[in-house]
Amino acid sequence: MKIQIKNAHLITMDDGKIIENGCLCIENEKISYVGDQALPDEDFDRTINARGAIVMPGLVNAHTHTPMTLFRGYADDMTLNDWLFNRIFPAEDKLDTEAVYWGSLLACAEMIKSGTTLFADMYFMSESTIRAVLESGINANIARCVTGTNNDYKDRLYEAEVLYSEYDGANAGAVKIDFSAHAVYTCSKEALKAVAESAAKHNAAIHIHLSETMKENRDCYSQYGKSPTEVFRDMGIFNCPTNAAHCVFLSENDMEILAENNVGVSHNPISNLKLASGVANVNEMLAKNILIGVGTDGTASNNSLDIFAEMKTSAILQKGIRLDPTLIPARKALEMATATGAEILGRGAERGQLKKGMRADVIILERNAPNLIPVHNPESTVVYSANGANVQTTIINGKIVMENRELLTIDMDRVASGVKDAVKRMGI
Amino acid sequence: MKIQIKNAHLITMDDGKIIENGCLCIENEKISYVGDQALPDEDFDRTINARGAIVMPGLVNAHTHTPMTLFRGYADDMTLNDWLFNRIFPAEDKLDTEAVYWGSLLACAEMIKSGTTLFADMYFMSESTIRAVLESGINANIARCVTGTNNDYKDRLYEAEVLYSEYDGANAGAVKIDFSAHAVYTCSKEALKAVAESAAKHNAAIHIHLSETMKENRDCYSQYGKSPTEVFRDMGIFNCPTNAAHCVFLSENDMEILAENNVGVSHNPISNLKLASGVANVNEMLAKNILIGVGTDGTASNNSLDIFAEMKTSAILQKGIRLDPTLIPARKALEMATATGAEILGRGAERGQLKKGMRADVIILERNAPNLIPVHNPESTVVYSANGANVQTTIINGKIVMENRELLTIDMDRVASGVKDAVKRMGI
Repeated sequence: MKIQIKNAHLITMDDGKIIENGCLCIENEKISYVGDQALPDEDFDRTINARGAIVMPGLVNAHTHTPMTLFRGYADDMTLNDWLFNRIFPAEDKLDTEAVYWGSLLACAEMIKSGTTLFADMYFMSESTIRAVLESGINANIARCVTGTNNDYKDRLYEAEVLYSEYDGANAGAVKIDFSAHAVYTCSKEALKAVAESAAKHNAAIHIHLSETMKENRDCYSQYGKSPTEVFRDMGIFNCPTNAAHCVFLSENDMEILAENNVGVSHNPISNLKLASGVANVNEMLAKNILIGVGTDGTASNNSLDIFAEMKTSAILQKGIRLDPTLIPARKALEMATATGAEILGRGAERGQLKKGMRADVIILERNAPNLIPVHNPESTVVYSANGANVQTTIINGKIVMENRELLTIDMDRVASGVKDAVKRMGI
Repeated sequence: MKIQIKNAHLITMDDGKIIENGCLCIENEKISYVGDQALPDEDFDRTINARGAIVMPGLVNAHTHTPMTLFRGYADDMTLNDWLFNRIFPAEDKLDTEAVYWGSLLACAEMIKSGTTLFADMYFMSESTIRAVLESGINANIARCVTGTNNDYKDRLYEAEVLYSEYDGANAGAVKIDFSAHAVYTCSKEALKAVAESAAKHNAAIHIHLSETMKENRDCYSQYGKSPTEVFRDMGIFNCPTNAAHCVFLSENDMEILAENNVGVSHNPISNLKLASGVANVNEMLAKNILIGVGTDGTASNNSLDIFAEMKTSAILQKGIRLDPTLIPARKALEMATATGAEILGRGAERGQLKKGMRADVIILERNAPNLIPVHNPESTVVYSANGANVQTTIINGKIVMENRELLTIDMDRVASGVKDAVKRMGI
């Protein structure tokens, strides 16, 4: 299929290039042209006239737990302990593969509707999530999360290995399978080592939680006499490409370890605020050239999957906390949510920019929405003024999956009733 | 006109009452019934079947500068000085009444589309803003802002007085005219005193900026040997009902002064972060029973007028900064943006709750939007998951001004072209 998007205000994320009256062409799953020349409509199966609207790369959600959409609003405003042990863990015990499928499909719908075209997931019963991912057409890095303090991690790791061999590269590369060690406080040293070895053997990447809370750091020092970052490093995790979520409490030395090992960081400012974890030192990490993407975390701690909100919060939070309004300018926030997000998910060569030869993950924003005009600077418009609902059209791997706010691969009535039934069956 | 909204998930904000299968009736400009009994459709000119969607009071934006929509994205990521003196002030010098009208109408469109039914505005050329307000049908407290360090405040105050006599109570009470002294750093003592006296004489309220930045406090101590709060009090401002915006840097004593004088506070968390002012001590102010609403501030420092984002940021920011996830629970954030917001604008007896006899300022959210399901707790859904674009229908004073996302009182194509021309004419 050949698609042309003309009269576009293109934010390419390719070296900061913005083309005010641009044209983007797609041939099958790839971008075949980015420039200022519109071509004859008859050369294309489909020409979309953007009429001046902003057209940009799809967004990347670098850390989430998709099935947790089922717990959206189920546990708010409570202490972490109360939240986890009295609400989330008991609810998770009631999940079955069917529920995970509906929760994942709901998340895919929400992400596509808010312009996210790639996400990194860490959960369990991951085949159900993959089923939803394949159905919806979205790109995903899926990791079966390993936890375990005794030998009970082994079955989980085995599941991760099976998942890898069955699904890595599925749907022409839309699906990538990662490994995952949940966190230092939920994995024994043996479990961490085993995950590192297995991921290395498969040449795969690893998705972890790192230094999300002060308590995690304190407990880790008590147990190991070192920081979570040091423990992960010493267990060999960083020998594989790693996506480390949160990183709220890193020492100078921890940051240097991440930088040396090219560990990518997924920054989740809204979840970190809502769960009262704190504010990550994004600015210091950037100064050390650590690659930082943004993530929503699960919907139980956010409670939304809108990456536009994450971009804005990333930018304004650092300014407001450090009392410096020049920190994280719009372009940097946009980079985190596109090119850099793709990079830390091992997708940077193919995704995150509008560039000839890259995969066609493209979104078209609303034109003349009251919250989007005037456009003095399109990067500012996207980061500070837009929200997910301003996305009109979402294209993933060259396929239109939403047009004029209408989901084309997902039947929302079916999802709503599936989710309702799942929640009812679980009795939550 | 008699309207019935049935099968509604009603969040009344009346004593926390939530009715899952509720009905709300409107007779002319007022709410005539709130309960669980649907009435025969034929008794009404219009019956809206909400089909289970959340129906709630319209939101209140307690502090904004509407015409600044024209500067949305015009000046970001810069120091306050650079922002104000090199971008905003020179741009404001180029405003004319026509530009202010278009900027205001754009703001009204954005607010109605995101569920705001009442706002407090502080700016100049206010007749143009009132023209937009009357056209759009929205409720507004309008204040002609007084600044001046010599005698030059007098003309401005005279304009405020004329505005008051011509427009206070216009459109059956939709418009309320407030007085305004911009801030301690822009008004002389004489100006402050004159505003206080004139407002008292007219029995009107006063809208001010208070302790927005550390610099403001420092300079005020240098000049007066006291805090901005003390200066305002000593000049008689607090003898009138006062809406104090920002309040980022208040001492214990300042807070007590506000509490004693029933000064309402408009909290603007997003603007305060984006301009790197800091984070207001909302929790301490609430502990002193200070009434706190939320505001967006102007679009040049936000850059959006979406009160949903303000609610969420208010709630999560206090949690994240104070490391206590139980602070500002969903209901409190919702109160700030509805009943309390109306209260500090002097509208609490008539607006901010769904209650028989009150004005019918009502919004209906989307049903089954992917980001809004499941609904475990509707207050959480509104505060943590929804955004302005989830508002489907906005009713103000019993009149439907938006339905199915379609603005009924404002022609957006006309606004878009008016805004474009204004920006072009101003050369910004």
